[in-house]
Amino acid sequence: MNRDVRITQVRITPVAFRDGPLLNAAGIHEPWALRAILELETSDGRVGINETYGDAPMLAVLEQAKAHVLGLSPFELNRMEERLRGSIRREDAPAYTLAPGSDPSRNTAKAISAFEVAMLDLQGQMVNAPVVDLLGGAVRSSVAYSAYLFFKYAEHHGKPYEPDAWGEGISPEQIVAQAKRMIGLYGFQSIKLKGGVFEPAHEVACMQALHEAFPGLPLRLDPNANWSLASSIAAAPALDQVLEYYEDPCPGLDGMAELKKHTRLPLATNMVVTSMAEFRANVQKQAVDVVLSDHHYWGGLRATQQLARMCELWGLGLSMHSNSHLGISLMAMTHVAAAVPNLSYACDTHYPWQDEDIVVGGRIAFSEGAVRVPAKPGLGVEIDRNAMAKLHDQYLHCGIRKRDDLAQMRKYDPSFSGKTPRF
Amino acid sequence: MNRDVRITQVRITPVAFRDGPLLNAAGIHEPWALRAILELETSDGRVGINETYGDAPMLAVLEQAKAHVLGLSPFELNRMEERLRGSIRREDAPAYTLAPGSDPSRNTAKAISAFEVAMLDLQGQMVNAPVVDLLGGAVRSSVAYSAYLFFKYAEHHGKPYEPDAWGEGISPEQIVAQAKRMIGLYGFQSIKLKGGVFEPAHEVACMQALHEAFPGLPLRLDPNANWSLASSIAAAPALDQVLEYYEDPCPGLDGMAELKKHTRLPLATNMVVTSMAEFRANVQKQAVDVVLSDHHYWGGLRATQQLARMCELWGLGLSMHSNSHLGISLMAMTHVAAAVPNLSYACDTHYPWQDEDIVVGGRIAFSEGAVRVPAKPGLGVEIDRNAMAKLHDQYLHCGIRKRDDLAQMRKYDPSFSGKTPRF
Repeated sequence: MNRDVRITQVRITPVAFRDGPLLNAAGIHEPWALRAILELETSDGRVGINETYGDAPMLAVLEQAKAHVLGLSPFELNRMEERLRGSIRREDAPAYTLAPGSDPSRNTAKAISAFEVAMLDLQGQMVNAPVVDLLGGAVRSSVAYSAYLFFKYAEHHGKPYEPDAWGEGISPEQIVAQAKRMIGLYGFQSIKLKGGVFEPAHEVACMQALHEAFPGLPLRLDPNANWSLASSIAAAPALDQVLEYYEDPCPGLDGMAELKKHTRLPLATNMVVTSMAEFRANVQKQAVDVVLSDHHYWGGLRATQQLARMCELWGLGLSMHSNSHLGISLMAMTHVAAAVPNLSYACDTHYPWQDEDIVVGGRIAFSEGAVRVPAKPGLGVEIDRNAMAKLHDQYLHCGIRKRDDLAQMRKYDPSFSGKTPRF
Repeated sequence: MNRDVRITQVRITPVAFRDGPLLNAAGIHEPWALRAILELETSDGRVGINETYGDAPMLAVLEQAKAHVLGLSPFELNRMEERLRGSIRREDAPAYTLAPGSDPSRNTAKAISAFEVAMLDLQGQMVNAPVVDLLGGAVRSSVAYSAYLFFKYAEHHGKPYEPDAWGEGISPEQIVAQAKRMIGLYGFQSIKLKGGVFEPAHEVACMQALHEAFPGLPLRLDPNANWSLASSIAAAPALDQVLEYYEDPCPGLDGMAELKKHTRLPLATNMVVTSMAEFRANVQKQAVDVVLSDHHYWGGLRATQQLARMCELWGLGLSMHSNSHLGISLMAMTHVAAAVPNLSYACDTHYPWQDEDIVVGGRIAFSEGAVRVPAKPGLGVEIDRNAMAKLHDQYLHCGIRKRDDLAQMRKYDPSFSGKTPRF
């Protein structure tokens, strides 16, 4: 590789893509999900790519970070981190976040991650190696993902486009049908249901129905901290029989620590251990047993490896979280998951809920629920310019600039409280 | 890079080199220090090199590890770790170790480190990048080392070769003279004295003499846990005035935790936090403030980066430990130290006490106490075959197979107790 190569241009393109009417603790997904596509151009004419959050606050953070990355070699990851740590404005964490990806106190980690992955893509291109090789090499040749089920409506409010093929998903029968369709299409070998939408008894019944329909498949339920501690404890005996882990039923590290006394299940989280500082707090309180990593807000692929080692050291399990995303993120997730020996759970992914993508060759293929670790240089995917232009145009016209599942829900039900925990 | 390249041969060459009659808590250095030189040959004809411990038990561990590394790509660091973790025999830790490098419970970490560095050297050669670039790139262009002073005799027992040029080092005046000579030769800008040899009052007087002779230079004293807790507490008020950190005066994490109440100095260690498991124990006891990293027993350069992040997260300082070593180890230390933003203390090195080396071009140069981070591919040093043959021949004839500073001391003083803590 040539050490004189420098990053000479940073392009950030917001895109919007169709997303289903998926229900969650905060409300319901809007008809369009946002992402930002990063492109780093180098002095030798290469383009390194990545994908991250595309809401307006994140776009502002990326714009702020740009100037600090220009002029660096793609190999100067540590210098990039140092610069962004010294320059990204810190903001206080809100009292409650459904998604750490929207949490401004994680701006620095999110920006570091956004640029790190694109720089690793460049490194891989420069040395003719897949990103996984730059992370110490693969310990598995493919990465297993889970079937990520949602309660959902059949159609979006206002019918902005044709209804999706998944239909309504509310009753246990509909949820089982959704799982069957998703497993039929992708071959997933474990199942997660996003809960926190209906009365706990209904969600427990759905898990029991899945358990009966798919005997032996690991199951997870994630009420997104929308159940009170009392409700979480009350649901534990039934869930103990069917889950592999119990994800964020109730709010707070203290709540999870208390719940732990009432269940035999490992407690998992992507809400109370979402940063190194929170990891440290959990070490002290010993509340959570499984951390759902997400390189987008943990600070990148190397930070995810760091987290993995710390999980190993403190005896915690490691799984992977996802937001609505496209193929570039799926590839980054796959490279890092392949490099982490103790990432032993199937990773979450929203990918089946998307039907668009911006990568050359179209949507990434799954085989038996897993994505093959690419052997091509860098991330192993390229941008389809026409597809990206189309999704950028959708961004320009969709009218959404910041995800707001609560406001969207109030279009269906003006009296929706948005109170948490709701059950 | 070519992903089909495989490691086809592992060569391990023990070497012995002259070492001074340096006093320490255990006794005195023998006239010859041992190291092992690793060479990994690849299917495309490259040779990756590294240096590690060369005592008989470590040679046995390396021999045991060999078979598990053959056939790997130099990029398969994670797979190599996985294989060695699964295959290196674990042994119990002895109750007391002066040097974690001789501790058999660290066999796995030591073997992983030995092979990791040689594989990174290969990676660097294959992609034409210095090792530091494979660790995220340099955050500094040179790495500062400290003047590592020792109490010493003028000559070895039995006079195996000509006396060194350093003369006797026992009185405060002699220690100041030793520091002046070492700083004159190398330009170091901080000073460490290996203590635990004489009465604490004498060692404190030496530090005070250094403080007067080198006003403003950061000073460290390392009694190697050879002082009782009471002696360590008694010496604290005087040392509080002159040290930057107080390194391992008394034994044990509990001892250090208690001492902490009696000194304003940060407590440093390379004795009670020498593994990830001990790091975890220290998080709980909050005993030690500064960890002296050493990639040779922490599990490699990547593990040192891991340790650095954990130190940052738990608010600990980070410095670097050394044993008697040659130029290859000095280069590995320099690459990783350059990649770690919070390695903010000057690193320890025994290098000035050696007058031989096996690298092409002879001994590594220091400028103002620092080593320039090489820009050449890999570690940036090569083996001088004639020099290595000579040092291997010394190994064959020196008669030493396992370091024994206590037995060596008893040649001078048959009544030497070896009791610890002795003061």
